[in-house]
Amino acid sequence: MIRLMGIDPGLRFMGWGIVDVEGNRLRHVADGVLATQSGDDVPRRLCDLHEGLMKLIQHYGPTEAAVEETYVNRNGSSTLKLGYARGVALVVPALAGLSVHEYGAMAVKRAVVGTGAATKEQVSMMVRRLLPGAEVKRADASDALAIAICHAHHRASAQHVGAGVRMA
Amino acid sequence: MIRLMGIDPGLRFMGWGIVDVEGNRLRHVADGVLATQSGDDVPRRLCDLHEGLMKLIQHYGPTEAAVEETYVNRNGSSTLKLGYARGVALVVPALAGLSVHEYGAMAVKRAVVGTGAATKEQVSMMVRRLLPGAEVKRADASDALAIAICHAHHRASAQHVGAGVRMA
Repeated sequence: MIRLMGIDPGLRFMGWGIVDVEGNRLRHVADGVLATQSGDDVPRRLCDLHEGLMKLIQHYGPTEAAVEETYVNRNGSSTLKLGYARGVALVVPALAGLSVHEYGAMAVKRAVVGTGAATKEQVSMMVRRLLPGAEVKRADASDALAIAICHAHHRASAQHVGAGVRMA
Repeated sequence: MIRLMGIDPGLRFMGWGIVDVEGNRLRHVADGVLATQSGDDVPRRLCDLHEGLMKLIQHYGPTEAAVEETYVNRNGSSTLKLGYARGVALVVPALAGLSVHEYGAMAVKRAVVGTGAATKEQVSMMVRRLLPGAEVKRADASDALAIAICHAHHRASAQHVGAGVRMA
């Protein structure tokens, strides 16, 4: 059994999801959103995200993390803020000794729904179908679980190539 | 006596400088550059910067940090990478309990040289003049010391307003 953590990074809301993988079966463990106060200064908010992620990793003990590649928009200032949050999302699991993997939004949609053109609603619906028991109250948590599912899919394919193990 | 840390963030090279402030006097303590390997993956590199900064803070014991506001260029991908590094530069001092302050490049030049239009060479020359003993082998370290000087200047002005203390 391997325990994965998916992270959908953002400065205001950071979605997270924990999934267990055993053979070709996925099991939902937990999900949620770390929120920061927009009135706080940026170092404080990054600190809250850093400490929040570290506590989740210590509590659930995942061994691999997958982080969504942030959409790069045209606004330099908001790209920079996404960069801060994503920097924290990448560094905390690495500090805790997890392997860290990155997937673009298209790869995530393809892994979960079967097409890179899937809507947010389709992704959310498939996350609930693939992970019975997931409540997923917020979209950011659903996205984080989708990233974890995507990583489960890709690591299975890698194992398939490397060791002849076949998974769905 | 207050000990300040200036940080010039970057993913490849992160400049740092430690300066003591006593009354209106500045004293150079140390400076350098944390370098990461461009062949390593980003989580590994962020981890190296995080651990490096944390060790410097533990070793030198500064109580306040100042970080240069990153130049936002038009290339979304490199802005994002700067964002990762800057996120680490903001979060590590905050995690260690330091107050964290941010200054734009213009404010730094104005504080060190007296004009926001100063060249890099002028900044570097004034850093050596204001901080005798600073070797400053790399430009990133000089920039980090300039940021620390800028913060010393601004905190003195704030004290001047608040408590009637006058500083140069």
